[in-house]
Amino acid sequence: MSRDTFAAGERLVSPAYVRQGCEARRSHEHLVRQLLEKGKCPEDGWDESTLELFLHELAVMDSNNFLGNCGVGEREGRVASALVARRHYRLIHGIGRSGDISAVQPKAAGSSLLNKITNSLVLDIIKLAGVPTVANCFVVPMATGMSLTLCFLTLRHKRPKAKYIIWPRIDQKSCFKSMITAGFEPVVIENVLEGDELRTDLKAVEAKIQELGPDSILCIHSTTSCFAPRVPDRLEELAVICANYGIPHVVNNAYGVQSSKCMHLIQQGARVGRIDAFVQSLDKNFMVPVGGAIIAGFNDSFIQEISKMYPGRASASPSLDVLITLLTLGSNGYKKLLKERKEMFSYLSNQLKKLSEAYYERLLQTPHNPISLAMTLKTLDAHHDKAVTQLGSMLFTRQVSGARAVPLGFVQTVSGHIFRGFMSHTNDYPCAYLNAAAAIGMKTQDVDLFIRRLDKCLKTLRKEQNRESDVPGVDSYDKTENVDIEETTLKLDNVLLDTCQDTSS
Amino acid sequence: MSRDTFAAGERLVSPAYVRQGCEARRSHEHLVRQLLEKGKCPEDGWDESTLELFLHELAVMDSNNFLGNCGVGEREGRVASALVARRHYRLIHGIGRSGDISAVQPKAAGSSLLNKITNSLVLDIIKLAGVPTVANCFVVPMATGMSLTLCFLTLRHKRPKAKYIIWPRIDQKSCFKSMITAGFEPVVIENVLEGDELRTDLKAVEAKIQELGPDSILCIHSTTSCFAPRVPDRLEELAVICANYGIPHVVNNAYGVQSSKCMHLIQQGARVGRIDAFVQSLDKNFMVPVGGAIIAGFNDSFIQEISKMYPGRASASPSLDVLITLLTLGSNGYKKLLKERKEMFSYLSNQLKKLSEAYYERLLQTPHNPISLAMTLKTLDAHHDKAVTQLGSMLFTRQVSGARAVPLGFVQTVSGHIFRGFMSHTNDYPCAYLNAAAAIGMKTQDVDLFIRRLDKCLKTLRKEQNRESDVPGVDSYDKTENVDIEETTLKLDNVLLDTCQDTSS
Amino acid sequence: MSRDTFAAGERLVSPAYVRQGCEARRSHEHLVRQLLEKGKCPEDGWDESTLELFLHELAVMDSNNFLGNCGVGEREGRVASALVARRHYRLIHGIGRSGDISAVQPKAAGSSLLNKITNSLVLDIIKLAGVPTVANCFVVPMATGMSLTLCFLTLRHKRPKAKYIIWPRIDQKSCFKSMITAGFEPVVIENVLEGDELRTDLKAVEAKIQELGPDSILCIHSTTSCFAPRVPDRLEELAVICANYGIPHVVNNAYGVQSSKCMHLIQQGARVGRIDAFVQSLDKNFMVPVGGAIIAGFNDSFIQEISKMYPGRASASPSLDVLITLLTLGSNGYKKLLKERKEMFSYLSNQLKKLSEAYYERLLQTPHNPISLAMTLKTLDAHHDKAVTQLGSMLFTRQVSGARAVPLGFVQTVSGHIFRGFMSHTNDYPCAYLNAAAAIGMKTQDVDLFIRRLDKCLKTLRKEQNRESDVPGVDSYDKTENVDIEETTLKLDNVLLDTCQDTSS
Amino acid sequence: MSRDTFAAGERLVSPAYVRQGCEARRSHEHLVRQLLEKGKCPEDGWDESTLELFLHELAVMDSNNFLGNCGVGEREGRVASALVARRHYRLIHGIGRSGDISAVQPKAAGSSLLNKITNSLVLDIIKLAGVPTVANCFVVPMATGMSLTLCFLTLRHKRPKAKYIIWPRIDQKSCFKSMITAGFEPVVIENVLEGDELRTDLKAVEAKIQELGPDSILCIHSTTSCFAPRVPDRLEELAVICANYGIPHVVNNAYGVQSSKCMHLIQQGARVGRIDAFVQSLDKNFMVPVGGAIIAGFNDSFIQEISKMYPGRASASPSLDVLITLLTLGSNGYKKLLKERKEMFSYLSNQLKKLSEAYYERLLQTPHNPISLAMTLKTLDAHHDKAVTQLGSMLFTRQVSGARAVPLGFVQTVSGHIFRGFMSHTNDYPCAYLNAAAAIGMKTQDVDLFIRRLDKCLKTLRKEQNRESDVPGVDSYDKTENVDIEETTLKLDNVLLDTCQDTSS
Repeated sequence: MSRDTFAAGERLVSPAYVRQGCEARRSHEHLVRQLLEKGKCPEDGWDESTLELFLHELAVMDSNNFLGNCGVGEREGRVASALVARRHYRLIHGIGRSGDISAVQPKAAGSSLLNKITNSLVLDIIKLAGVPTVANCFVVPMATGMSLTLCFLTLRHKRPKAKYIIWPRIDQKSCFKSMITAGFEPVVIENVLEGDELRTDLKAVEAKIQELGPDSILCIHSTTSCFAPRVPDRLEELAVICANYGIPHVVNNAYGVQSSKCMHLIQQGARVGRIDAFVQSLDKNFMVPVGGAIIAGFNDSFIQEISKMYPGRASASPSLDVLITLLTLGSNGYKKLLKERKEMFSYLSNQLKKLSEAYYERLLQTPHNPISLAMTLKTLDAHHDKAVTQLGSMLFTRQVSGARAVPLGFVQTVSGHIFRGFMSHTNDYPCAYLNAAAAIGMKTQDVDLFIRRLDKCLKTLRKEQNRESDVPGVDSYDKTENVDIEETTLKLDNVLLDTCQDTSS
Repeated sequence: MSRDTFAAGERLVSPAYVRQGCEARRSHEHLVRQLLEKGKCPEDGWDESTLELFLHELAVMDSNNFLGNCGVGEREGRVASALVARRHYRLIHGIGRSGDISAVQPKAAGSSLLNKITNSLVLDIIKLAGVPTVANCFVVPMATGMSLTLCFLTLRHKRPKAKYIIWPRIDQKSCFKSMITAGFEPVVIENVLEGDELRTDLKAVEAKIQELGPDSILCIHSTTSCFAPRVPDRLEELAVICANYGIPHVVNNAYGVQSSKCMHLIQQGARVGRIDAFVQSLDKNFMVPVGGAIIAGFNDSFIQEISKMYPGRASASPSLDVLITLLTLGSNGYKKLLKERKEMFSYLSNQLKKLSEAYYERLLQTPHNPISLAMTLKTLDAHHDKAVTQLGSMLFTRQVSGARAVPLGFVQTVSGHIFRGFMSHTNDYPCAYLNAAAAIGMKTQDVDLFIRRLDKCLKTLRKEQNRESDVPGVDSYDKTENVDIEETTLKLDNVLLDTCQDTSS
Repeated sequence: MSRDTFAAGERLVSPAYVRQGCEARRSHEHLVRQLLEKGKCPEDGWDESTLELFLHELAVMDSNNFLGNCGVGEREGRVASALVARRHYRLIHGIGRSGDISAVQPKAAGSSLLNKITNSLVLDIIKLAGVPTVANCFVVPMATGMSLTLCFLTLRHKRPKAKYIIWPRIDQKSCFKSMITAGFEPVVIENVLEGDELRTDLKAVEAKIQELGPDSILCIHSTTSCFAPRVPDRLEELAVICANYGIPHVVNNAYGVQSSKCMHLIQQGARVGRIDAFVQSLDKNFMVPVGGAIIAGFNDSFIQEISKMYPGRASASPSLDVLITLLTLGSNGYKKLLKERKEMFSYLSNQLKKLSEAYYERLLQTPHNPISLAMTLKTLDAHHDKAVTQLGSMLFTRQVSGARAVPLGFVQTVSGHIFRGFMSHTNDYPCAYLNAAAAIGMKTQDVDLFIRRLDKCLKTLRKEQNRESDVPGVDSYDKTENVDIEETTLKLDNVLLDTCQDTSS
Repeated sequence: MSRDTFAAGERLVSPAYVRQGCEARRSHEHLVRQLLEKGKCPEDGWDESTLELFLHELAVMDSNNFLGNCGVGEREGRVASALVARRHYRLIHGIGRSGDISAVQPKAAGSSLLNKITNSLVLDIIKLAGVPTVANCFVVPMATGMSLTLCFLTLRHKRPKAKYIIWPRIDQKSCFKSMITAGFEPVVIENVLEGDELRTDLKAVEAKIQELGPDSILCIHSTTSCFAPRVPDRLEELAVICANYGIPHVVNNAYGVQSSKCMHLIQQGARVGRIDAFVQSLDKNFMVPVGGAIIAGFNDSFIQEISKMYPGRASASPSLDVLITLLTLGSNGYKKLLKERKEMFSYLSNQLKKLSEAYYERLLQTPHNPISLAMTLKTLDAHHDKAVTQLGSMLFTRQVSGARAVPLGFVQTVSGHIFRGFMSHTNDYPCAYLNAAAAIGMKTQDVDLFIRRLDKCLKTLRKEQNRESDVPGVDSYDKTENVDIEETTLKLDNVLLDTCQDTSS
């Protein structure tokens, strides 16, 4: 409230109390001003009252909330449903302008501020998370895959002769489709097995460049975060190759912001070689709903070029979500989440190691993968070729989400390209395995429940296998699991063998 | 609540009352079942309690809301901020799957249902709005322009030799950019002047096809809704040409769902010729926040192909908004909005005609444009070449949003292409003019305020012009305008000449 | 946001747009300042964004929302549940202070302002509704009955010898209990029958005063709003008696604010005689949840005395509800509701008259009752003594709420006092009847559904009665009623004979 | 959703996924059923989705939410403002019925269930908190003081000759007023000084009973929770006296639920003697907004009598708040809060002890008071008689809320009774002192900030005093306090000497 309004309040209530309230209001205001002036994520998170006051203030700056506005255009921010208006805090105009998703809208100063501040905060967090020399970034309300497509479409204008994208294999459909959709031909580079790990075949990459000729190659499309036993690509070496051959380099950093290792790889790649853009998911790194990505890079003008490629205004919803989230957490809160994730990774790793050994399996040695783990399913697979997929199904029906049981020899055709050994990132991985990941926001309870349920599933499968043969029985690893859940989920058990394999992609 | 739960309630409160409550619950449930069974927009809108109950029910079907869930994947629908979770009704998993934006997610039965139902409802509304033979459609959380890009990228795979898109000129940047971003070369077909109207030059279109050869042409990209004096393209004739030459036809129907004329053109085009897809904005037609579009078509499998081109999951936010809105309005509510818009168009047209004549101007005769109107600014322009842009600025500062003052001779370069007479859809329109539109949700009050403020602005400008010359003064058209608003807005008056021209694009 | 904050915003977004947003903010602020300065209900209702901004501003003035507050008391406005905090807009400290429910709290300037403004707005509305000379009033978070008790308890201190309260009979339990709870002996004055109406027996009142002696009488406790065929008490005459004998006068105006007739009676009573306090329900007059009342009067200091009798702080929830409601409606909106209610009363009256005559019954002539109506149930009662209660039950199970079927001869003991003919306000009303009322917020649809369902019920009962006898059948009055509802409700039909009689009290 | 509705969903989305969602729904349902069946606070708190689903389910059982309802009564649960409806989860009908606040409403099965369950949960918590033999209780939407009044008014009917209430002095206005408002004469029993503590003078109580005669005494009105150096009354002994003389006993247990010592006193009192009712605040014990109390007792029928004394329906808002809070916390969550409070009491005690000694003051020895502490202000008071109130004012302006600076010799008249030494519970306490309390929800940060600010204030006052005299200076106790807050609050410093004394009452 303004000075005059407070003065009016003083006549109703004691001036001293109103003035104290007025002082208190200034401390909220102070936080908002700091944010606008510095454009950085506050160290300590804001409480809800400051946050909602801020969003309210933004909203009243948009023309659809002007008390005296009259609209005679075709897009006036009118909203039919009060529920819809409220859930968007009356910020209706979206972000960007027909020419540029980062541009300012005359009709919507508040939404424009929201957009600028969000991008500024996200940039701050990327620096903090391990890429201090990032030059610019922006939030785009599209999936990581579609955002990669936008990068490729932007590069097309700079490299009119290019037809191919060099792509170290990663078995995730939307990565592959991002290139197909952009109209390019992916050149798949098979990974090499080093110990248990699947790593980038640098020689094959370089050979392919020489074979096709640099000018015919749009870019190298590499990946950081991925399911074990694949590990992040050798970004430094790829970046050097890109620099040497004058080829752009786009990195799919889908859920890599949460890992200092992934971020360090990007920082190093940019330092010693060439990285044009790196793209990350909002939801996977910032615990917001699915639907947004961040396109970031080391060259301000190239990032701006990408932002100018998006034709039309865009949803402000993902930006709003990440803004609320970062202001609520503060940079300290986000750092805490990163730290806890690291600890949870160790914990999951230890628990899974113990469990696997109890079943004569082992945890794959994948030290370069900071997020995902894999335990072998050799003995399971040996008895029955459907046992691996059955395990996946059993876990799903027991409300374990995100675990992937990867059988051998699965063949999948994606947009006309045949992938042998699909899901395992290679044609012939030595054994079937099960994936589990320690992602941001995971709790000890998730790990404990997972281990118990996996134990039960393995035990059940083991029993079935032992009906004929005579393998020594394994006692259940843990007995404290809630019985109710088990009972309800068991009913669903035989339902969905077909769903088990790919629930997490 | 289930039967058992109600039974427990009966022990606390009189059984008769609980049973009455239980019966009442069934009538809410009945509405939900009808919706799922029929997949159609209910005739009467739902009240908020049914709606929120339904959204709650959807949410508890998603794995992130399972009470016993444990997540060991990299995307588990975890949300850091309670505010964010709540505003999305805990529907966090977005829509679609890595391979297909219309696909079902194993982890998120509720969000998947939301997606299916929304697409089904929107299809129902498109039929109701004038395109009864539409075969399929889907909501995509991208701007209209980016959605057009996706259509073009899909067509690329079917027409590998194509380089060009035939495009009857419309001066809106994102339309043009949608083709550039997709990597094609727009072939601009200048409009022809018929009376005051700018219409499609069919001969030029056909000549261009013959010149370039049909195989080199990806598609014709036509437009329905547009600013007067341009009018919707001659869709029927274009559709016949497309059929004859075997060229795809994509229609930009941005805000055309609200006009039975635009929808009729599409229906007719598809009946007599070829239309592959038509794309419309969610926000402009359904009064929801900016950020979504509907891609629709007459061939089910082609629409599915487009939906499979989107790499990755997508935001459910625009789908949720339109679902809430349609269930709140019901089909009767939406029809009422359409009817009111038509009436408002007549009213605006009459008022603007009267006002323009009072200032020795006239309303342009554009009977084929069902939404947008234009009044000449000849006398204004005659005195001073900056007067037209000044009018735009004055209107903006007086909280008139969406009006466009279009001067003569404005030149704009968009992605390397030079447009002469930009904003007017032609190189040399005979006079400067002012646009106003009657879009869905407009109120009588909008028209009245607009006419009053425009009157005041014109009077002010006239006075300035008359200081030297001796034209007879015009009395203000209306004197009832609120003084407060005028005073506050006057302060801003000289600020922003540069913003006046394009506030609505 | 303050000037400095806006300045920071201008560096991120164009200054002209931010300034426009800043101006727009001032118009919201202007409304708030007007409210605080004038203390009157705004003519036009506020939109939600102004309202929520206002509530936010109030909240940040309370110490529990100070960013730097530390609390070392036993009542610090701490809230365990975020849901609870949010639904109260973080206004946690309630209203009043240990000594006085109208006092200002040092810890909570915002809540104190809320309290003051609400009382001020409500006073404004009471004036507007027909009592222009009211001197003071306050909202108290208690039922009407408990609020009457508080008035009686206050009077006790002024009239230490008084034991009795003179009370023209009205059959509503909480009215009677309000006196019992306060520790007084109600002296029931039976009503007299004038035509169909039950009216105050003034002679009996005066006789009783003389019999008991004025000093032994605490006050006369009269009633305005009531169920027909009782009508509002003769307030003017009672007020004159009170003035003559020096006896206080407390009026139960439960749902009378919505009727200009009831309000006029109060205004006249105060003009010609004595009225000390009149008490009205918040929920019944202002369409808010149950739980609050307004205590008003013509002597400022007496009303303050009552407010000082409430020991302790009180819930701000009813005050908040009525504040939100009045700011949303504006005085124009409230007047519109009053006007519509009057129209609805005529409509209900006409429809009920027609229906009653179709069944050889009649609408009782009760012109002095402006809200409630009654139709006779003579023919029904003649056949079977349970038919009247059965009708009540049938209506209840058919989701007709608020209708009261009043049989003859019902005897009820309340706090030791025996009421013959309970529910009918007299020992022997000539016939059984059915009540229906046109209260604020009623819609045409309520009337139509009621008439249809009542028609069906009467027809069903008639049929049962005619099985043996041979009365000519009556056709159903209307046939369009929704079949589904009928079917579901029929199932409940026989369940609850005992609930029918008093569902509205 | 019902089975049929899920079946409809299965046709849109894979049956397996829908079934999994359906199973998941059952686990929410299971929690609700357990609650209704057992009527106990769940051990683990519910998450928001279960909670909101439950509230939704309750709401649809109320007639105002019936889709086919028609209302023809004067109280139909109509709500004018959507904001108001939403914040009450559409539970509009309040609790109770005209005759009884615990009764069931035919129109509102959902609200009735809410009322029953809340009372049941609260009873469970009272048992858990230390009074296992409590027989019944109910939540009433009134302040503790007004609730005590209701108890006294109920007792009046059982003891028609009684005029007096025996009341061991506690200096809190609403306690005193609760008796005055009920129309009784408080007989103040001065406390006796034992060490630093002020304790019940049992001999004086018994002497007074004999003097006045048991029949003329309505009850003894004792107190547990209070500000140090007063300590909880000797409940056991008082209860025995009550039993011996046949006098009722009402205990003001305002914020005592949070202390196992206070609860133990009540339990013991009831075991060895007589306690008829004990009353506690909702907000002070359960961290909900101000406005409700719990009336509890050991005799079921007496508690029912009290609940039948409330004339009219009442606000459900306090019941809803405590229901949400207890379901969110679970009994484990509540126990945790109790445990943390105890720890915080020790911490505050230690810190305050250290600080007081640094200033040559001391912490009063009040081992019987489990919540409130007091440190002497002897040296401060010795120099200047206004220094004590000045300290209160300084703390208030520095956003320390709840601290009470108690000077010597303050005289206050409450409802005609003169209290010497008001605020200190005795006519002549040996010294001035400062109160601070460790109440439920307090955080370490509260204590730390308080100690720092108190240190600064004392230092400032000391300096002022030392300008003339030559006392050795004391260094500031802590130097880390945020400077910004200090600066802003200093401005307010001289404003409000009059507010300092009673900010916490």
